[in-house]
Amino acid sequence: MSLRSTVDFLLYDWLRIESLTQRERFAEHSRETFDAVLDTCERIAREKYAPFNRLVDTQEPQFDGEKVILPQATHEAWRAYAESGMLSAAQDVEIGGMQLPYTVEAAANAFFARASVSIGAGMLTVGNANLLMAHGSELQKKVFALNEFSGRWAGTMCLSEPQAGSSLSDIATRAVPDGADFEGDPLGPRYRLKGHKMWISAGEHELTENIIHLVLAKIPDEDGRLIPGVKGISLFIVPKKLVDAEGQLTGERNDVALAGLNHKCGWRGTTNTLLNFGEGRYPVRGAAGAIGYRVGAPGEGLRCMFHMMNEARIGVGMAAAMLGMAGFEASLDYARNRPQGRPIGPAGKDPAQPPIPIIRHADVKRMLLAQKSYAEGALALELYCARLVDEQHTGTPEAANDARVLLEVLTPIAKSWPSEWCLEANSLAIQVHGGYGYTRDFPVEQYWRDNRLNMIHEGTHGIQAMDLLGRKVLMENGRGLQLLGARIAETVQRAQQVPELAAHAQALAQALQAVGAATQAAWASGDPADALANAVPYMQAFGHTVLAWIWLDVGLVAHRSADHPVRTGRLAAMRYFFHYELPKIGAWLQVVSHRDRTCADLPEEAF
Amino acid sequence: MSLRSTVDFLLYDWLRIESLTQRERFAEHSRETFDAVLDTCERIAREKYAPFNRLVDTQEPQFDGEKVILPQATHEAWRAYAESGMLSAAQDVEIGGMQLPYTVEAAANAFFARASVSIGAGMLTVGNANLLMAHGSELQKKVFALNEFSGRWAGTMCLSEPQAGSSLSDIATRAVPDGADFEGDPLGPRYRLKGHKMWISAGEHELTENIIHLVLAKIPDEDGRLIPGVKGISLFIVPKKLVDAEGQLTGERNDVALAGLNHKCGWRGTTNTLLNFGEGRYPVRGAAGAIGYRVGAPGEGLRCMFHMMNEARIGVGMAAAMLGMAGFEASLDYARNRPQGRPIGPAGKDPAQPPIPIIRHADVKRMLLAQKSYAEGALALELYCARLVDEQHTGTPEAANDARVLLEVLTPIAKSWPSEWCLEANSLAIQVHGGYGYTRDFPVEQYWRDNRLNMIHEGTHGIQAMDLLGRKVLMENGRGLQLLGARIAETVQRAQQVPELAAHAQALAQALQAVGAATQAAWASGDPADALANAVPYMQAFGHTVLAWIWLDVGLVAHRSADHPVRTGRLAAMRYFFHYELPKIGAWLQVVSHRDRTCADLPEEAF
Repeated sequence: MSLRSTVDFLLYDWLRIESLTQRERFAEHSRETFDAVLDTCERIAREKYAPFNRLVDTQEPQFDGEKVILPQATHEAWRAYAESGMLSAAQDVEIGGMQLPYTVEAAANAFFARASVSIGAGMLTVGNANLLMAHGSELQKKVFALNEFSGRWAGTMCLSEPQAGSSLSDIATRAVPDGADFEGDPLGPRYRLKGHKMWISAGEHELTENIIHLVLAKIPDEDGRLIPGVKGISLFIVPKKLVDAEGQLTGERNDVALAGLNHKCGWRGTTNTLLNFGEGRYPVRGAAGAIGYRVGAPGEGLRCMFHMMNEARIGVGMAAAMLGMAGFEASLDYARNRPQGRPIGPAGKDPAQPPIPIIRHADVKRMLLAQKSYAEGALALELYCARLVDEQHTGTPEAANDARVLLEVLTPIAKSWPSEWCLEANSLAIQVHGGYGYTRDFPVEQYWRDNRLNMIHEGTHGIQAMDLLGRKVLMENGRGLQLLGARIAETVQRAQQVPELAAHAQALAQALQAVGAATQAAWASGDPADALANAVPYMQAFGHTVLAWIWLDVGLVAHRSADHPVRTGRLAAMRYFFHYELPKIGAWLQVVSHRDRTCADLPEEAF
Repeated sequence: MSLRSTVDFLLYDWLRIESLTQRERFAEHSRETFDAVLDTCERIAREKYAPFNRLVDTQEPQFDGEKVILPQATHEAWRAYAESGMLSAAQDVEIGGMQLPYTVEAAANAFFARASVSIGAGMLTVGNANLLMAHGSELQKKVFALNEFSGRWAGTMCLSEPQAGSSLSDIATRAVPDGADFEGDPLGPRYRLKGHKMWISAGEHELTENIIHLVLAKIPDEDGRLIPGVKGISLFIVPKKLVDAEGQLTGERNDVALAGLNHKCGWRGTTNTLLNFGEGRYPVRGAAGAIGYRVGAPGEGLRCMFHMMNEARIGVGMAAAMLGMAGFEASLDYARNRPQGRPIGPAGKDPAQPPIPIIRHADVKRMLLAQKSYAEGALALELYCARLVDEQHTGTPEAANDARVLLEVLTPIAKSWPSEWCLEANSLAIQVHGGYGYTRDFPVEQYWRDNRLNMIHEGTHGIQAMDLLGRKVLMENGRGLQLLGARIAETVQRAQQVPELAAHAQALAQALQAVGAATQAAWASGDPADALANAVPYMQAFGHTVLAWIWLDVGLVAHRSADHPVRTGRLAAMRYFFHYELPKIGAWLQVVSHRDRTCADLPEEAF
């Protein structure tokens, strides 16, 4: 099975995305135009990304005191990506975009993630520009967003700070009005920013003429105090190099300085930085602070930023899924070609017989089927969520609203599940290779290292779990959980009609009921500290239930397809999930249902 | 909790090893002499190992065409280790040893593994020399083993070959008698060896004057054919530099040549090599082939080698446990000192309050308690197995025989369980650190990379599982499983008397019964291919049951101890294991009991 044929199956047979072309926004599209985009991306990924994946791991970004040096291959990959038009794939045709469904955009981007997850930093630039399209002024869109969509400039998201980490309410970057006329700047109300931003991906490089930082900062009150909490957070555009209202560089360097490169365990093709804003390294226009232009109203910064969070989290989930896929493909190839050992039983007793390829050993098959089940399941989940994004944007008001609510509930799973289980897939890929897998002569150890990031960035596992159990399943009186339950029930009902799938349908119905009961039990005492003590095990069980549903739904389509090894493999991956994975939810839900406080109550000094 | 106080508790309070001093072999020992060894090792590990753990990761072994260059710190660590006497800790006093119980030796070595798992290669040298003490001639012991125990020479184990991997029956290294008088050599029957050996740890270095390779090879029959299968395997001593019967170097280099260094994901302080034997790089004494001296009878090679396997596997398990411990300690320290976020509930609503240390967050506590439960549980398991080794060597005949059989059953768990779960612990240690954990400025990502080796070397996870379900639980009519069951039942019975532990006792009894039933069900069809299709899930369930038993047994002792945060912590780690971990066995045993063939039956072309 190639990734492409899996993608085609999921897009066209399972999600039936051709039907999107009946909608006005996508009316100019057809299966042919979708395929052309997928073809192009698959080719660029194969030619400009995959061959350099190990290179970007060994040649880490270097700071020479002036510039960040990246391998030539990274420059070429960026150029090819920008030239493909993918940066503006989802944008209106009239501003140079393709008006492509997000589902197709996400699928096309999967090829880059599979080829080299860390070369490409397109996602941040697109997210940055999308945010400006949603919340920026007309001139901010024209000057900043459009130049990002064209690939002329790149973008970042500057949220975290060294002292605050995930706790955005504690950020301390300050933004003060830049002079009496600060509101008169055509690029937006002008401020001076001072502070440190940590974990900024692509925060400094020479890939593009300019870098557009989107920065969260607080505007002090008249006494110079910062408003505590997230309510005080505003959003600013802080270009590395200042530009005029026409989008031309003015020749002035803004006071944004690289304070350090983070040296990571993996994902080394993307620069990760600590940036100092307004520290005086590059004094600009005779006053202190980096110049930034406010986006939206004061205090609305976090709301603006979260606008893009769902897509960013789908992007992380897709990256994790594609690392899982890359490891699966590598270990499948190895297992087919590596002769070692003999079959179990009488046939294997004769040492004079030649060894067999290791793919014939049951435990190797188990490790391969687990990977297939994790990676293809994760891909299907991400594409399902991407389809919900399209529904939210182009569906009927009712369908759009349902999609929005469903996305809220599914996003923590879309982010966390592939991060956890496709990392496990990568570990299995190493294991299939034996000692070779532990060497840097084979690609799988890098996939594993690269993938370890995904449970951390864009909201850690713990944050996703709190979001799911503490917010998402409660919001709008539990409507998200009800909608999801209805969709799962609908799949169960269809699967019950198919004798081969009926037992799975039954198992999924029970799992759904167990998750629902655990949700109730978690909140039964009304104390959030009780409920959230086991938010991560809850999320793990929720995630496995969602994936079982995805697999059963995919299985319904696969089951109707023509007899072929591909059909056999898909149905086996589904069956693997139901037999080996879904039963795990019992252990996770038990502590949730009991509101187990073994961990939460342990005093610090007892560890 | 320091590692030392945990070790003391397990050795003296739980395993009551002082009673060993009543045995003749250990009569000269006392708690004071045991403590002195532990003190010395703790100090050397702190001074000579821990400070250089990152250094050996970044300064990988380099081959300059002539020699393998290791950091100076590695030379100093080796020297300090050899001077401590630990290489001969278990040996008779009359040959310069300490006659130390293996339990104390294993505990003392734990400090080195925790400080820097990959600097020390002492384990292989000791294993090599121990094997010679068991199977070598008197002169082989004197010339080779004693010079290894003194640290003058180092040792290796050369089993794998590039084409054979775990399948030792397929090794192709040939050993032919070296001349008509080959049997007359005082060092043992002399052969000429030709072949390639892969994955040889410490296969080339300048730490010692000489390197003594123990090599598995096949002696061809009169037609020059190798006997297929493991029956044809013999064992040879192949010194890097030839020596005379007095143990002096003769000045001749033997024909053992470094063919390549493996570049690993972690564990980089230890050289891992591909060695060519008898390829003609260093022609010696006018004939082709590397000179080797046979140990034991022809065809007995694998049996001799397996003599040392149990201790080697306990060593791997201990290494994995100590990496888990190192990550736990690092993340506990980080969690205590990193302020971020606020409590859940009303107290956390006021953003003007200062952030709290992250150790106060329930999910961080969960990640810490899981690590504690994995790492301390694994340490207890390894020490228990080490205690069985002492019983096997110095117990009454009946007790020794029971210990031998129990060790056979427990060894796959002692090897595999820490390799899997202390790797998970290291992943949690990264997660506690957030983004910092993913950088090379903190030690945890290295622990995680180092630990990934342990599921691979000294028999992969899959091999351990086949050994457990395919051999160990069946041998001697299931006596191993019966003995283990009796010990578990004895712990259950005692715990039932303690109200606080009674529920755990009940859960453990049920788990034991479930494992027993699954063992029966796995073999019910009589077809090994049915039983072994799910050998790994079986081993996972078996391992979790064993660890639950270990924790309950430790908990019984902890429960009787004085009220103190340490007692609270131990009982919480036990409770964590029973609430969060043991329930996982249901999912694993289900596929075993059903003899699920979803994976085993999938045709190759369907993946």
